[in-house]
Amino acid sequence: MTTFTLQAIAEHLKVPFQGDATCRLSSLANLAQAQAHQLSFLSNKQYAPHLVTTQAGAVIVKQGQEVPAHLNVIWVTDPYQAFAQISALFDQRVPVALGIHATAVIASSATIDGTARIGPHCTVGEGVTIGAGTELVAGVVIGDGSQLGQHCLIYPNTVIYHGVTLGDYVIVHAGTVIGSDGFGFARRPDGWTKIHQLGGVRVGNHVEIGAGCTIDRGALDDTIIEDGAILDNQVHLAHNCRVGPRTAIAGCTGIAGSTSIGADCTMGGMVAIAGHIDIADQVHINGSTVVTSSIEQPGHYGSGTVFQDVKTWRRNAVRFGQLNEWVERIKKLEKQLAPAMDKDASAPKS
Amino acid sequence: MTTFTLQAIAEHLKVPFQGDATCRLSSLANLAQAQAHQLSFLSNKQYAPHLVTTQAGAVIVKQGQEVPAHLNVIWVTDPYQAFAQISALFDQRVPVALGIHATAVIASSATIDGTARIGPHCTVGEGVTIGAGTELVAGVVIGDGSQLGQHCLIYPNTVIYHGVTLGDYVIVHAGTVIGSDGFGFARRPDGWTKIHQLGGVRVGNHVEIGAGCTIDRGALDDTIIEDGAILDNQVHLAHNCRVGPRTAIAGCTGIAGSTSIGADCTMGGMVAIAGHIDIADQVHINGSTVVTSSIEQPGHYGSGTVFQDVKTWRRNAVRFGQLNEWVERIKKLEKQLAPAMDKDASAPKS
Amino acid sequence: MTTFTLQAIAEHLKVPFQGDATCRLSSLANLAQAQAHQLSFLSNKQYAPHLVTTQAGAVIVKQGQEVPAHLNVIWVTDPYQAFAQISALFDQRVPVALGIHATAVIASSATIDGTARIGPHCTVGEGVTIGAGTELVAGVVIGDGSQLGQHCLIYPNTVIYHGVTLGDYVIVHAGTVIGSDGFGFARRPDGWTKIHQLGGVRVGNHVEIGAGCTIDRGALDDTIIEDGAILDNQVHLAHNCRVGPRTAIAGCTGIAGSTSIGADCTMGGMVAIAGHIDIADQVHINGSTVVTSSIEQPGHYGSGTVFQDVKTWRRNAVRFGQLNEWVERIKKLEKQLAPAMDKDASAPKS
Repeated sequence: MTTFTLQAIAEHLKVPFQGDATCRLSSLANLAQAQAHQLSFLSNKQYAPHLVTTQAGAVIVKQGQEVPAHLNVIWVTDPYQAFAQISALFDQRVPVALGIHATAVIASSATIDGTARIGPHCTVGEGVTIGAGTELVAGVVIGDGSQLGQHCLIYPNTVIYHGVTLGDYVIVHAGTVIGSDGFGFARRPDGWTKIHQLGGVRVGNHVEIGAGCTIDRGALDDTIIEDGAILDNQVHLAHNCRVGPRTAIAGCTGIAGSTSIGADCTMGGMVAIAGHIDIADQVHINGSTVVTSSIEQPGHYGSGTVFQDVKTWRRNAVRFGQLNEWVERIKKLEKQLAPAMDKDASAPKS
Repeated sequence: MTTFTLQAIAEHLKVPFQGDATCRLSSLANLAQAQAHQLSFLSNKQYAPHLVTTQAGAVIVKQGQEVPAHLNVIWVTDPYQAFAQISALFDQRVPVALGIHATAVIASSATIDGTARIGPHCTVGEGVTIGAGTELVAGVVIGDGSQLGQHCLIYPNTVIYHGVTLGDYVIVHAGTVIGSDGFGFARRPDGWTKIHQLGGVRVGNHVEIGAGCTIDRGALDDTIIEDGAILDNQVHLAHNCRVGPRTAIAGCTGIAGSTSIGADCTMGGMVAIAGHIDIADQVHINGSTVVTSSIEQPGHYGSGTVFQDVKTWRRNAVRFGQLNEWVERIKKLEKQLAPAMDKDASAPKS
Repeated sequence: MTTFTLQAIAEHLKVPFQGDATCRLSSLANLAQAQAHQLSFLSNKQYAPHLVTTQAGAVIVKQGQEVPAHLNVIWVTDPYQAFAQISALFDQRVPVALGIHATAVIASSATIDGTARIGPHCTVGEGVTIGAGTELVAGVVIGDGSQLGQHCLIYPNTVIYHGVTLGDYVIVHAGTVIGSDGFGFARRPDGWTKIHQLGGVRVGNHVEIGAGCTIDRGALDDTIIEDGAILDNQVHLAHNCRVGPRTAIAGCTGIAGSTSIGADCTMGGMVAIAGHIDIADQVHINGSTVVTSSIEQPGHYGSGTVFQDVKTWRRNAVRFGQLNEWVERIKKLEKQLAPAMDKDASAPKS
């Protein structure tokens, strides 16, 4: 197990520290659980009291934070950001061996950088290019002509169809599919004629895509995920969607075809977004919201009902089904009352 | 890159054309983007003005449509249908090589047609039959005794369990699972006893199933998808469901066990359908609708609330949670007002 | 095809029977469909009339149930439970061959029990241990250091990342991913810094996980699924969730990070559960419910609206969007009417 000294970590972050420079730290832990060999951090002020009792070997804190004198401390401007940076140091995952595993099947016209890592049972198609430092862990399939940039990490059994482009530093988690056919069919009286999906998928740099996602290729033009976007697990992106830069989409969200989502948006889990609409930049959508039309203004949006015990909820749900009728009855009451009020108004004050 | 002359395309569609018969077309594009080497189409009247300005090499239009005299035109009765048919010509995907890849593992009792294509790292079980022209792209697993018809296309890393039957011209996209166990358990005081799922899955002809779908095998009888049905990505079909012919199900939709869906239905994305219910033919369900009981009449159905800015929505959602109480208060007002009105009615008119 | 005599089945269940002890039964079927070579069961009283007409070779019924004298009967205390137990006997699936398939890639430091079965194209990482009787069907990838107990059954193309522990008798269906990175990122002005996910996943004994699920590894601590829990297809479990013992989660349900779910809960399909909340034991959640806060009391919970024909629903949905305004108008009416009533009250009774 790799360990780091307090000093080494502070130097890695290029920040000051106090305490025992030689203190050895082998993993990360929360303040409450951390032990003497562990590094912790304080990013949420409400946990500040834990600083007094923590057993952590060292703690990353914001400059200006009061700390017990005995504590080994790394001073930073943004402890959560520093924690994220340090988490990379403690990641124990071992990449697959350099080069191409004997069981991988690589088409003769594929161009694979000498520093790439292609694991067992991978299949790489004709004309594919794979950049420096990119790793296909195992069972990954890359279709003809697709291009993977540098330092990508493609987890097992991911399928990338033909005609897909990934930028640099793209992570794709296991079982995800990129480039499957969009759901395009022309109705005939006796069935559906498939519209062959002739576009591709273009994924920018520093994009992370979770496990079990499906990203369809475009019908004519490409489906696009821009730089720095992050997608959680089981996200479904239909053909010709665009996800803007740095937009974050939580798990189980589905986005229908030809919808464009702006930059720096966030979406909670299981959001459903209709097709052929535009979402502006900096739009934040609550989990489980159903978005049925374009959103032109930045802001926070939601839909749905509160959850309740089933008995109460069922009564309310029944009333929802009659809601327009009840509104009509309110209007009628208002009408009834309006002349009464007029009459009252003209009557002598009591 | 394959190109087609205007004449060749018109002959393929068996329709008339006007203009330069030798004009070479190498891909499809929208009217607004198309260039001289591209074929376009007009299916939505609102884009008709683009006919004047388009740079397309040729355009597919409906008979009777006015077009500029200089335009190369293919005359059809249904431009969208023609576009769908022509899309197949321009599909660049190259099938895997004829025969069985050296890395595929094929059980000795499997029967694979001489014109089938079995790609790298596929696994084919005992007693499996694979029909003429069927292609398993890569990493596909077919369980014992399953039968695939002719001209099927099974994309990478798809898993078809034992006892599954696919008809002819079935397309299954990557990462989809067909024949996994239905969610059947008998409750014991100390846990759950698994009900082994002994049925299979039967898929008809000309069915397309998207990426990342899960289609469970039946408990005793089979789960059934009928001819011409089309399923988008991440659709979940539980045990003993039936999907009727030509029914189209959009992405992320989940259908619980033993539910039967009729013919020619359409479902938007992320629809949830309860178990043990029947949906009639020609039922159309809005995206994100939750269907909790049988639908006996053809028609359009929906559920859910509008999305709004979070502040407005939250106020409304709180009121939904009190809705039955407010209805009771409306009723009370009506009662109060009813005698008042009676009284008013008996009072002298002002 | 294996067949069992009536006597053999009764002995397997250790229960009494009546009728022809030598009657041979080769499969299970519903009372209405069962034929002379099939075993059926009566667990729902409403089907009791079928006992008179069934063609089943034998029927499992509750002790005390009236049955026609000619019927071969197995007497049990819980017919559904007995049916579940017997379903295992009739399961025709053949496990892969004992030992390690020639195409599997096994790291030199992996420890695989001599009674395990590793199918084609599997990849097993360094330091992995695989217990007695455990089967990896095909294309399964197990990351470094993960530990699988005894008698597990891992279906094709499942991916288990590094640092994951499965107990004994765990079933994982095809295409599922266990141990993918949680969705953890720290926001920078110009993008997201990945928080490397350093925890693992711990799955207890007798757990079943459906097809196409995604179970994320923890950020610092582990994601946990306790003994006897059962998950249907396409369930998404985010980092640091806990699923309590014997809890059952139906298909397409998504659970956000750090949420803890108690013992003996049930969740319908497509439930969405927010992050950082606690669900008590014995909580039952309707399908498609959105749970946004902790639930401290056992009970049944729901959310959402009824589904209706689109025209009616749309009117009601519009009114939902104005609901708080209508409530304000009800309050105004009440205020208007309150003094009127006071006045009425002081007026002489008619």
